[in-house]
Amino acid sequence: MKKKTTIYDIAKKLNITAATVSRALNGNSKISEATRKLVEETAKEMNYEQNRLAQALKSGKSYNVGVIVPRIDSNFFASVIRGIEEELYPKGYHVIICQTHDQKSLETENINSLLNAQVDGVLMSISQAQNANDDNFDALIKKNVPLIFFDRKKDIKGISSVTIDDFKGAYEATKHLIDQGYKRIAHLSNDRSILIFKNRYLGYKQAILDSGLEFDESLVIETQSKVLEGRKIMKQLLELEHRPDAIFSSSDFTALGAIQEIKEHGLNIPEDISVVGFSNEPFTRFMELSITSVDQSPIEMGRLTAQVFLEEVNSDKRVTSEKQVVLTPELIVRKSSLRTPVKH
Amino acid sequence: MKKKTTIYDIAKKLNITAATVSRALNGNSKISEATRKLVEETAKEMNYEQNRLAQALKSGKSYNVGVIVPRIDSNFFASVIRGIEEELYPKGYHVIICQTHDQKSLETENINSLLNAQVDGVLMSISQAQNANDDNFDALIKKNVPLIFFDRKKDIKGISSVTIDDFKGAYEATKHLIDQGYKRIAHLSNDRSILIFKNRYLGYKQAILDSGLEFDESLVIETQSKVLEGRKIMKQLLELEHRPDAIFSSSDFTALGAIQEIKEHGLNIPEDISVVGFSNEPFTRFMELSITSVDQSPIEMGRLTAQVFLEEVNSDKRVTSEKQVVLTPELIVRKSSLRTPVKH
Repeated sequence: MKKKTTIYDIAKKLNITAATVSRALNGNSKISEATRKLVEETAKEMNYEQNRLAQALKSGKSYNVGVIVPRIDSNFFASVIRGIEEELYPKGYHVIICQTHDQKSLETENINSLLNAQVDGVLMSISQAQNANDDNFDALIKKNVPLIFFDRKKDIKGISSVTIDDFKGAYEATKHLIDQGYKRIAHLSNDRSILIFKNRYLGYKQAILDSGLEFDESLVIETQSKVLEGRKIMKQLLELEHRPDAIFSSSDFTALGAIQEIKEHGLNIPEDISVVGFSNEPFTRFMELSITSVDQSPIEMGRLTAQVFLEEVNSDKRVTSEKQVVLTPELIVRKSSLRTPVKH
Repeated sequence: MKKKTTIYDIAKKLNITAATVSRALNGNSKISEATRKLVEETAKEMNYEQNRLAQALKSGKSYNVGVIVPRIDSNFFASVIRGIEEELYPKGYHVIICQTHDQKSLETENINSLLNAQVDGVLMSISQAQNANDDNFDALIKKNVPLIFFDRKKDIKGISSVTIDDFKGAYEATKHLIDQGYKRIAHLSNDRSILIFKNRYLGYKQAILDSGLEFDESLVIETQSKVLEGRKIMKQLLELEHRPDAIFSSSDFTALGAIQEIKEHGLNIPEDISVVGFSNEPFTRFMELSITSVDQSPIEMGRLTAQVFLEEVNSDKRVTSEKQVVLTPELIVRKSSLRTPVKH
């Protein structure tokens, strides 16, 4: 039987590195158009594509991997998916995506549909549904289809995950506000049955307590990651007798809504009220009043999730391993929270 | 054999309309949380979910529909997908998504993977690859799997499509700039082997010609729909001896880059230079200097695409029909192009 073409064969023929071949086939923007074309043509000539299918038939694998996210129209999830694709495509895997719109019923349907589609694994960020339980995952586990969580996870024995240290991200964001002199910091939270939101809340709370400020539970508001929700909540907060002077939001979208509402009330940001978001969505950078936010390295998160999948899918099926990968977030300080330094 | 549960059965039991049941199962935000929960629970009690799978087994259909888009991290494509989901979920179909990153090789792989996953149809917006030919679509057509294009289409006999009138959208955007008194209007175009970009170019050109302004081909620049590309091109345009006083961009992302570059050169928008984008991405509305853009009714486009699919999948296979649906775009005028009216 003829040996199948690998990216190493293509690299050798073109006298370039395998990494460059992988990047070119994978559409990495660092690769010139000319190189990409050359690699694609050579891959075709050498039947690289055909071999993937042949390999699939031989192994009984579909080489399709399912990715389930709450929504695709957030840069965070889109970037995680990009990272997953960058890691899996050169290995001959294909990525198909489903979104849950944060509904448990759609989560169940997504998993069933992906199982029907014979995927080799499911990489997912769970929905916000309060009543989420483990039923949804049993079907996967029973069929021995690798399941890996990223970002929004459930603690299930034997299931690996890739997350960021949300506690630390929230702690540093809140600490930054305290260092800037803000004293009454409200927190726009989200469904805290989801670990990431619980940990952001706990990080915020700990930073307040550690600084000796008073922790006021009434300044913690649970809402959804939507611009309009941010406006609504901010309106309520501005009507308080003793209103907050800073907002730490667990979502950039809610932060954006809060900013719109603050401006409409004729208040200045960050002089009167400061706002910090979470996720580092591109619009936080594009705005004229750029928004301070916490970066979650989503492409890295996607790559690591894919790597954990590859380890599991290639491992001895009789061994159950569980891996918890935690990334360190980075606070990006921008105009919405940076008071002009006072000159003496 | 027991009759399968439909949304009408659920509606009857709960004494609400079938439309409400459909919306509730589909996560429509107009439905209250309480109703949604009630409908979901009733659907579960009545084995609505189970019946979908039973039906799939009986009919040999997978009830999975594949959607292929150039990228998921654009609000336009995410919204089209939302429209497709809103239409297909209540009919028992499930949507799985792939992205091509505008690469022909990934387009081919996406189609193969979706065929492997036994989808009942493929709804797609084609990639920008210059050499795109029809090979990719042959596999689908041969297997009698319905293929429907939306937005970015190819003219293939027998293949239906849902698009907007890009010529009209571009014509009106350019006409608006001319009405505001701008005389030297540049056009940031894109790969014109893709019909939508060709038609936007033609609409722009016709508006210039109809108004009696001089048409200057050197002011038409082909670029990609990326913020950094917009900056790069705008830098070149600002260095021209006779620089443009307005930009009509076929992309909001390129328009945003142009705006950033214009500001960096210390010029005022819209006084010195005016900018109009295309697609009505949410950031065009959120910006302090909001951006005039052309709305493409993406949710409606998704719904109509799904409806065409349903017609085809339910039709007599021996009949070949082709449907071309064209939506009318809407110009949304915002700060980036609206000169303050001169008072007399």
